[in-house]
Amino acid sequence: MTKASSRKELMSNTVLEKAAVLFAERGFAGTSLRDIAEAMGMTRPALYYYFDSKETLLRELVRGITGVGSQELRKLRERTDLSAAEKLRTVVIGTAVRVAESPVRFRLLERNEAELPDSILQEHSASKGRILDELSAIIGDGVRSGEFRPVNERITAFSVIGMINWIAWWYNPQGPSSPEEIAEEMYTLVSRGLLRGEDRVPARGIEGAVALLREDLTHLERLLADGERPTS
Amino acid sequence: MTKASSRKELMSNTVLEKAAVLFAERGFAGTSLRDIAEAMGMTRPALYYYFDSKETLLRELVRGITGVGSQELRKLRERTDLSAAEKLRTVVIGTAVRVAESPVRFRLLERNEAELPDSILQEHSASKGRILDELSAIIGDGVRSGEFRPVNERITAFSVIGMINWIAWWYNPQGPSSPEEIAEEMYTLVSRGLLRGEDRVPARGIEGAVALLREDLTHLERLLADGERPTS
Repeated sequence: MTKASSRKELMSNTVLEKAAVLFAERGFAGTSLRDIAEAMGMTRPALYYYFDSKETLLRELVRGITGVGSQELRKLRERTDLSAAEKLRTVVIGTAVRVAESPVRFRLLERNEAELPDSILQEHSASKGRILDELSAIIGDGVRSGEFRPVNERITAFSVIGMINWIAWWYNPQGPSSPEEIAEEMYTLVSRGLLRGEDRVPARGIEGAVALLREDLTHLERLLADGERPTS
Repeated sequence: MTKASSRKELMSNTVLEKAAVLFAERGFAGTSLRDIAEAMGMTRPALYYYFDSKETLLRELVRGITGVGSQELRKLRERTDLSAAEKLRTVVIGTAVRVAESPVRFRLLERNEAELPDSILQEHSASKGRILDELSAIIGDGVRSGEFRPVNERITAFSVIGMINWIAWWYNPQGPSSPEEIAEEMYTLVSRGLLRGEDRVPARGIEGAVALLREDLTHLERLLADGERPTS
């Protein structure tokens, strides 16, 4: 990527973030390209360099959320060098971090789907459908290979998607947990929920043993913090 | 309950469902009591028998979702005859079934919170906060007793709430799974994600936690003695 094109991409992204905030406040219909230019401290012609219409901008905003996700997910699902749990980890960590980093965009879309122009809405719905299908397929592959319990793959996929999407409604960047910590916590919950009994130790080898130690140290710390006394 | 009061309650509930559909279509501000009466095939005076104002109706709609939930949850959390997993089961099954049975009400609230009159919004937000606190406390109790892994109780509570709330966005009454089946699938995922492996249920208290640590250390020592290298 050239310096200029990477600068353009960075700036486009800033415009998208700002536009999402305005759309969230005023709705799609109530926000003009002029409003967005003003909020960016740009002239309208300068904004046109990045987005030639409000529709292009909206489409980009929507694609950034569901479009990219569904393509990445298909490639991931087709890989033969990863276990189902490893694929699931990639999806959960990647998506949860992305939602926590752009909560406004996610909330905006879910709350204002009905206001999207038809063509964009159709593209968005199709992408959402593909995301659900790919995630269900990853979970189903894990079930068939015996790696996961025999779960209902569709309900489980919806559960994972719901858990992650909801981050957009509660995540506070000033709060105690980073996007990465939230993502790890969710992945651990889901993977332990899915893996068969014998495999429930999080990772093999020395790293797995250290992870166990850390888990049990946290447990001890909490007990001590609560001032609990030995029971015997 | 007398026959008349139970009939009134049934009818009130039908009015609430119908009102939720209209609110979802036209927004709170765009829906009048007259619209609701018309949609019910009632006169306005007849509707007044159930709800004396749109505000009363809205308040009832909101309370039915978060108000009832937070009260039930507090009573449940305080019970001493149930394990943390049993309490979690009651919450997950009860809430998931309720969301699947009234998806319109749930979506409506989440999408139109900003339009709620201030007093109702405050009551709603306070109830949501209490639901989160109670569910976090149930999970935290399970962690402290050694029943659950040492998870971050708040992120886990948000994960459970998100997974369940999301049902309102995808559940299809004509689909293959009943509300009860969805609820069971979600409870199994979450409880298996939280429970310690059967072989790793610790004795209670600090001594139990120390015993687990000793076990982990032995495990690590053996791996090191075997000359195993870190996996990455």
